[in-house]
Amino acid sequence: MAAVPSVSSSITVRLELPARPTAVSELTHAIEQAGAVVTALDVTASGMDRVRIDLTCATRGDEHAEEVVSVLSRLDGVELGKVSDRTFLMHLGGKLSIDSKVPIRNRDDLSLIYTPGVARICQAIAANPDDARRLTIKRNTVAVVTDGSAVLGLGNLGPLAALPVMEGKAALFKRFADIDAFPICLDTQDTDEIVAIVKAVAPGFAGINLEDISAPRCFEVEARLREALDIPVFHDDQHGTAIVTLAALTNALKVVGKSLSGVRLVMSGAGAAGTAVLKLLLAAGARDVVVADVDGVVHSGRPDLSESLRWTAEHTNPRGVTGSLRSALAGADVFVGLSAPGILTGDDIATMAPGAVVFALANPVPEVEPTEAARYAAVVATGRSDFANQINNVLAFPGVFRGLLDAQSRAITTETLLAAAAALADVVGDDERNPAYIVPSVFHPDVTPVVAAAVEGAARRAGLAGNEAPVGAAVAGHGQVGVGSPRGRHAFS
Amino acid sequence: MAAVPSVSSSITVRLELPARPTAVSELTHAIEQAGAVVTALDVTASGMDRVRIDLTCATRGDEHAEEVVSVLSRLDGVELGKVSDRTFLMHLGGKLSIDSKVPIRNRDDLSLIYTPGVARICQAIAANPDDARRLTIKRNTVAVVTDGSAVLGLGNLGPLAALPVMEGKAALFKRFADIDAFPICLDTQDTDEIVAIVKAVAPGFAGINLEDISAPRCFEVEARLREALDIPVFHDDQHGTAIVTLAALTNALKVVGKSLSGVRLVMSGAGAAGTAVLKLLLAAGARDVVVADVDGVVHSGRPDLSESLRWTAEHTNPRGVTGSLRSALAGADVFVGLSAPGILTGDDIATMAPGAVVFALANPVPEVEPTEAARYAAVVATGRSDFANQINNVLAFPGVFRGLLDAQSRAITTETLLAAAAALADVVGDDERNPAYIVPSVFHPDVTPVVAAAVEGAARRAGLAGNEAPVGAAVAGHGQVGVGSPRGRHAFS
Repeated sequence: MAAVPSVSSSITVRLELPARPTAVSELTHAIEQAGAVVTALDVTASGMDRVRIDLTCATRGDEHAEEVVSVLSRLDGVELGKVSDRTFLMHLGGKLSIDSKVPIRNRDDLSLIYTPGVARICQAIAANPDDARRLTIKRNTVAVVTDGSAVLGLGNLGPLAALPVMEGKAALFKRFADIDAFPICLDTQDTDEIVAIVKAVAPGFAGINLEDISAPRCFEVEARLREALDIPVFHDDQHGTAIVTLAALTNALKVVGKSLSGVRLVMSGAGAAGTAVLKLLLAAGARDVVVADVDGVVHSGRPDLSESLRWTAEHTNPRGVTGSLRSALAGADVFVGLSAPGILTGDDIATMAPGAVVFALANPVPEVEPTEAARYAAVVATGRSDFANQINNVLAFPGVFRGLLDAQSRAITTETLLAAAAALADVVGDDERNPAYIVPSVFHPDVTPVVAAAVEGAARRAGLAGNEAPVGAAVAGHGQVGVGSPRGRHAFS
Repeated sequence: MAAVPSVSSSITVRLELPARPTAVSELTHAIEQAGAVVTALDVTASGMDRVRIDLTCATRGDEHAEEVVSVLSRLDGVELGKVSDRTFLMHLGGKLSIDSKVPIRNRDDLSLIYTPGVARICQAIAANPDDARRLTIKRNTVAVVTDGSAVLGLGNLGPLAALPVMEGKAALFKRFADIDAFPICLDTQDTDEIVAIVKAVAPGFAGINLEDISAPRCFEVEARLREALDIPVFHDDQHGTAIVTLAALTNALKVVGKSLSGVRLVMSGAGAAGTAVLKLLLAAGARDVVVADVDGVVHSGRPDLSESLRWTAEHTNPRGVTGSLRSALAGADVFVGLSAPGILTGDDIATMAPGAVVFALANPVPEVEPTEAARYAAVVATGRSDFANQINNVLAFPGVFRGLLDAQSRAITTETLLAAAAALADVVGDDERNPAYIVPSVFHPDVTPVVAAAVEGAARRAGLAGNEAPVGAAVAGHGQVGVGSPRGRHAFS
């Protein structure tokens, strides 16, 4: 249950009550007393004796909502009607729609977009597969693939229960980057099967966004798909987090006047996100990183290291630190947590170097209570929307894929991730940057275009871009003459 | 190349020519002389001496279009500009778009449709999987699945070249039945793999439409998926064709005053569509059916019968006919061809019984030239749009899936197919039915709702329907109170 009322746990209650002068104030007072927040109140019907009111309020969660309803029901003369849940109402029927971009008004339209006309398009693509990027949805379409094994912080809920998250992701792709994304929820958690399936469905897509697949399988799935496919494969839980974390850290270090290569970093968490953040920080120039997991600091002398932890031991910890996370933190400049709730206290943060930077990204409950951390650290960031400096993947993945698709990139490289992080950091201007503003809002209009341009540039420099001309103007003006000449290459072949 | 100019092979030519009084008439005359049909002519710029004209004309195909352009280029003083192809222009950027149905305007919206709000939806579905039909896109979403092995009549073009057809199909699903359909083009033609993949991606869909998968693999793929899945699986090339053929035949027999159980039927073709049509005709009451393939009439005495043909031999041909298609046709009441172009002549049709019905459905060139067949048969139908009585799958699949989805049907049965065919036939009223009108237009507004209602009814009678209340009103009014109460079951759980 959240600490404060949230609109994501809003309820709307319909009530009838006597039309006494204090009718409304009694309701709002009762709700405030119960600790909820009134966000809307409509008198939807009124008579001589009674009024009907639809009242929406934010609660701290299901239990709290139940309390609020119970409080209302006990008010004098109140008759309780329907109680609706705004989040559930929002989800009725799902969040995506698939629409035709072409008119189908008559037989002529049919003959152009379906048989017999479509046969010529099929033949053109069969003759020149690259044309699929011009003549089909492939160019702008991304698969959002999950096996439902690590849904949000909720665990292994399976593919069906993961679908609302994937739909939401697809909705964000459209909203922030005008990308057509479709959820593919797989009823298998077998690595070989996942790889085989994604390979098989890949022809219709220009990119694959892996989502909520648990570690360590996610590493193998991604690596094998990158090897097998000629379109970029991006596990957002890893790389989206890494990009935003690096961007935020870049700005946080500017705020405290330190450099990435000069600071002591301590990380907590060696899962999918933690490992990806570590690798990107190292690629960006971090030198002194100490990683801890549940068993303490990772070092070469620790027994039973997994493959991934062995890699970590070999590439981090230059000072040979051993022991606990807590002890490693003493004197550190930066803490980055991608691990578990409440594992540190303000006292632990107090042992860090002056001008400390604390990223406590465990969700929904951070590694250290952020207001507590802020008593000792110069800059604090979390994954939560109710504190300053939210490290939110929405800052990265729309622009990253927009850039990859615009470049028709065949792959994604570490240089691309670094370019995205640098571009995202730069959205915060020198005159805007401060301890409470190290990343822009996800609604900042520059975020997607700036990240996209950086990613497209990186893909082109790496020689990964396709060479089809952009389709933009032609799509908008289909049916018009003079918007490009597909005919030159196809019609008379 | 088509026999007559078609808009599906339209070109638009930009030309400049001297501004003489006869400028326009010279152009149109030249195009008519070349055998093309002018469909649009716009003077897009005009000066003292010269005019610029965009001229669109329907041609018989690519070669003919080239001829037309060449004729135009030879006109006195004409300077040729861009030549565009209307079908290609229509396909630029693809034909589908995936859109968010929910607003994402601010942080509150984000918290409702994505984290943290979405977590409650995931948990509700994990607790009660049936809720996916209410709270996700599953309820209204169909996968259009192909392996690209039998694309239209073009053959094995592979998954990428099949994509334009699948996009068109999805566009038709939306246009005619308000269904969200998404193309899944598989880069494998291995039966086991196709089955495994469709099983794995099925959670997000309420139905599977198989498309353009070659026989005999399509039979096994469909049968195994029907066995494995709890959503309907429908191979449109088979059953869509069968439904429309049966509906058309029902009306054709009314026109000639004969009954299905009393007529002699001869069929040509024992592929995917032919076999499905045969089975549905038998289920509808046909008794005397003789099937021929390339090797002549199918009978039990024929050596080397495949599994499918053995079934056919056992269930047809009660009079023990042997020999050629042509000889079997003598005295027959009905011919249904789903085979190859031009295998029969008018003389063959002349040997049929009086009041003969001829369905020559091979595409684009029918088994017998339809105007020739009409000299001897009472009713003629083809798969072409340029003759009366087009047997077009668009008459069936949108309504079939609409009905299945509305019923939340777990499967599809032969009774459902029969109900769809009967309902489709009934769209043609007793006062409308005649030799040139045995099926309605695909744009007839009754087609989808009437077929859908029949299919939904059949699914309910068969005990295959789900029991979730329809979501309709609530989807339109999400965020409003009083449109249903999801809360009753979830919010306080």
